[in-house]
Amino acid sequence: MPIRAVVWGENVHEQKNPVVAAIYPDGMHNTIARALAQEGDIMAETATLQEPEHGLPAERLARTDVLLWWGHAAHDAVSDRVAERVAQAVWAGMGLIVLHSGHFSKPFKRLMGTPCNLSWREAGERERLWLASRNHPIAAGLPDHFVLEHEEMYGEPFGIPEPMETVFISWFQGGEVFRSGLTWRRGAGNVFYFRPGHETYPTYHDATVQQVLRNAVRWAHNPAPRVAGDPTRAPNVPADKAPEPVTERGPKLHQPGEEGYR
Amino acid sequence: MPIRAVVWGENVHEQKNPVVAAIYPDGMHNTIARALAQEGDIMAETATLQEPEHGLPAERLARTDVLLWWGHAAHDAVSDRVAERVAQAVWAGMGLIVLHSGHFSKPFKRLMGTPCNLSWREAGERERLWLASRNHPIAAGLPDHFVLEHEEMYGEPFGIPEPMETVFISWFQGGEVFRSGLTWRRGAGNVFYFRPGHETYPTYHDATVQQVLRNAVRWAHNPAPRVAGDPTRAPNVPADKAPEPVTERGPKLHQPGEEGYR
Amino acid sequence: MPIRAVVWGENVHEQKNPVVAAIYPDGMHNTIARALAQEGDIMAETATLQEPEHGLPAERLARTDVLLWWGHAAHDAVSDRVAERVAQAVWAGMGLIVLHSGHFSKPFKRLMGTPCNLSWREAGERERLWLASRNHPIAAGLPDHFVLEHEEMYGEPFGIPEPMETVFISWFQGGEVFRSGLTWRRGAGNVFYFRPGHETYPTYHDATVQQVLRNAVRWAHNPAPRVAGDPTRAPNVPADKAPEPVTERGPKLHQPGEEGYR
Amino acid sequence: MPIRAVVWGENVHEQKNPVVAAIYPDGMHNTIARALAQEGDIMAETATLQEPEHGLPAERLARTDVLLWWGHAAHDAVSDRVAERVAQAVWAGMGLIVLHSGHFSKPFKRLMGTPCNLSWREAGERERLWLASRNHPIAAGLPDHFVLEHEEMYGEPFGIPEPMETVFISWFQGGEVFRSGLTWRRGAGNVFYFRPGHETYPTYHDATVQQVLRNAVRWAHNPAPRVAGDPTRAPNVPADKAPEPVTERGPKLHQPGEEGYR
Repeated sequence: MPIRAVVWGENVHEQKNPVVAAIYPDGMHNTIARALAQEGDIMAETATLQEPEHGLPAERLARTDVLLWWGHAAHDAVSDRVAERVAQAVWAGMGLIVLHSGHFSKPFKRLMGTPCNLSWREAGERERLWLASRNHPIAAGLPDHFVLEHEEMYGEPFGIPEPMETVFISWFQGGEVFRSGLTWRRGAGNVFYFRPGHETYPTYHDATVQQVLRNAVRWAHNPAPRVAGDPTRAPNVPADKAPEPVTERGPKLHQPGEEGYR
Repeated sequence: MPIRAVVWGENVHEQKNPVVAAIYPDGMHNTIARALAQEGDIMAETATLQEPEHGLPAERLARTDVLLWWGHAAHDAVSDRVAERVAQAVWAGMGLIVLHSGHFSKPFKRLMGTPCNLSWREAGERERLWLASRNHPIAAGLPDHFVLEHEEMYGEPFGIPEPMETVFISWFQGGEVFRSGLTWRRGAGNVFYFRPGHETYPTYHDATVQQVLRNAVRWAHNPAPRVAGDPTRAPNVPADKAPEPVTERGPKLHQPGEEGYR
Repeated sequence: MPIRAVVWGENVHEQKNPVVAAIYPDGMHNTIARALAQEGDIMAETATLQEPEHGLPAERLARTDVLLWWGHAAHDAVSDRVAERVAQAVWAGMGLIVLHSGHFSKPFKRLMGTPCNLSWREAGERERLWLASRNHPIAAGLPDHFVLEHEEMYGEPFGIPEPMETVFISWFQGGEVFRSGLTWRRGAGNVFYFRPGHETYPTYHDATVQQVLRNAVRWAHNPAPRVAGDPTRAPNVPADKAPEPVTERGPKLHQPGEEGYR
Repeated sequence: MPIRAVVWGENVHEQKNPVVAAIYPDGMHNTIARALAQEGDIMAETATLQEPEHGLPAERLARTDVLLWWGHAAHDAVSDRVAERVAQAVWAGMGLIVLHSGHFSKPFKRLMGTPCNLSWREAGERERLWLASRNHPIAAGLPDHFVLEHEEMYGEPFGIPEPMETVFISWFQGGEVFRSGLTWRRGAGNVFYFRPGHETYPTYHDATVQQVLRNAVRWAHNPAPRVAGDPTRAPNVPADKAPEPVTERGPKLHQPGEEGYR
């Protein structure tokens, strides 16, 4: 059964900026979705900011294995409710791949708990991505390094929690470095951040970048059934249901059957 | 120069519940503050929910080295603005020690990016804390294990990101286990979660628990000057300021001097 | 194509101790291998200490996807050469699952770089394993906790490097806890340690334990081709082969084409 | 009380190579030791390969807080016994700072459990080190980046276990990147690897490098008393000494008081 991916695109600059529109006439989300579907094991749909609920109603997230997120100019236009829904889906087991300027998106900042800030420069300079974790599934089929001739620079320090794994590190012509491929686990969900993808360059048409995205979808996919019910619940286990016999003693705050404070 | 600690107490059950009031007549925050000050190298003040801005105006956080946080019944009464201010102070270098039911506090959930949920039982059962990281500074002077005869049970799975270090793991009489001492770094700030401390038991009068709290304050203290300015800023580095000579090429979104999107 | 697993068994107590022989008449390795093969996606063979090169010549490791290792009484009888060969295979991409008393085996200690010590008690007591990482692939299909009625106790502190992920934590009747399911990456290889499996109890006949082992083999399997050549080589990249133009300057130690020191 | 540091120097190229002798007439170890002692809180001695037991008898390690290790041409000349002794001291709480080509030293490889390999080029090119963990104690007083005009290149992938923290990442003129400041904990000991320091360049005369080394010594110092006795021992806890009452049941391998297998 193919992996069900949804590519979320902000779809703002594609509509307003002629340069971006020329590179991605169908929108970046459609270019990415087509790349994902290319080897047959991933079924890729799209969703955009402009759709009702940004194209991400709860039922749709429930049947999405991996969500990819590209946003830049309109992070604030994403509703808090949808951002929280995405975080909850990740905790319950949905994979999330955050792309480029999505480092400042609401779902990513929500899941990291840090500013996710960095330094940047838009000069069309050369970026070279180096593999830091040899044979990592996200790097399947890749050489030890590859080049994107024109990219925006992102520089360290990158305001993120220490990752589970550092997969790629970027070299920039102008003298900076950046951890450009990083993994985390959040609840039952796998999260991958991948740096390249400035909208004024044809990055998502690059064959190696497309390979990374397919690999990342496969890696982020957790085949286990989604965590049932509310992934944030904190169940009470009363004394008579304890795994080992235990007798209540001492004073209590809570009456039997009462919910805990949240 | 002594470390400047502030113990934040919700101060609700101490006022309403006679059991809690009898154990902590001055409030839990004052008991904890006195314990911190005991060896002279920590200067401990308190702050409570009921004070203006919950006792945590920006200027006070700016001169706080380590904040300790105990809350339970009134997490929602903490304003989002103060919770965000605490997170920003941590990113800028303030240490944060989250106690017991503070696992569901706004600042902790904000910094973890996960539900921070768990299972629980209020039965006054025995808890035994085991050291998992021998000679960790937070365990200075401690034996390999110690017992709290009456505690609330918290059980795994604990909905947190994988920690930087696992310092303590708890055994419970009723059959559960819990990672009860955990460290993370968030920006320039050190974060420690310490599980024990249910308000109907005299946990914070326990000498070993007090030793852990003092150790944790010393560990969490980052003596570096706080990150200057806004810890979330993302500075532009224009081409003519790049560390290596780089010539702008290709199309651009941004005009010179323009701020990036957030 | 099925995953190719090899179960390495020390095969000493099965030959000498009537209790162990009665529980595992074909040896523990054969019991484990049969459990692995049960769902058809894993092809499981065995190897033992007594075979030439302990059943692990280089060619065999080269075509092994995942090696499982159980040893106890005869760690020292394993040749250093074979232990190093196993480590090299892991660095090149072979998965390794270390079982129970294998915490003191040469390959595990070699890969961890720590003593891997613990406290222990052989009293046939109850062990309850708790899931600490909900929906982790190694826990697929498992409940939040499960019980082994008779097991040896292993207690913290466990002398290991902080793991990549804590999957299981054990509760013991006698009052101890232990991180009993842990993951690491070493080079291109995935490593999993799983605690249960004392030879005088029927642990490897337990259906849940067998499920964990199958899950772990699937998780540890890195489908990427093995790292080509020597996984420890440190290639020189001379100035005229540098990715960016660079001119040699300053004094040098090495002549062109010379190998580096090791 | 000052921190007691020992700088271990291989002291080979300083004796044989006129370029190195000119830069470090007293040997690199003495240059480094003088830099450490500069602010008065560190007492720095030296030890070299050529001394009996390489200058590191057990009694000396027992009273060393932090050991710094520089080796290159003669890794194999270090006796296995001394390398193991260093590892044991780290497990018991001694800090270890491994410098530059020490990535291939016996103690570092022993503690990492990985090949610690990398790619390299000796062309005197420019290295720029970027801070990846803002306000980390090891970076106290440092700017976000600093330059070494002449250095050897080390390139990713670096064959190490994922670190606890990534403190520095290097940019190289020739197009490579490298994680050049990394922390791990091994037992009770803190380990830091710091990349710069090729012997044909005056790196250890650089003020910023010297600041990093002093910071690193302070960070690596664990003030707790060294773990008593053998840091690899695995104590038996018999049933009658169990923290909770437990009755032996089922068959056993071991007689009362017997040592476990190792």
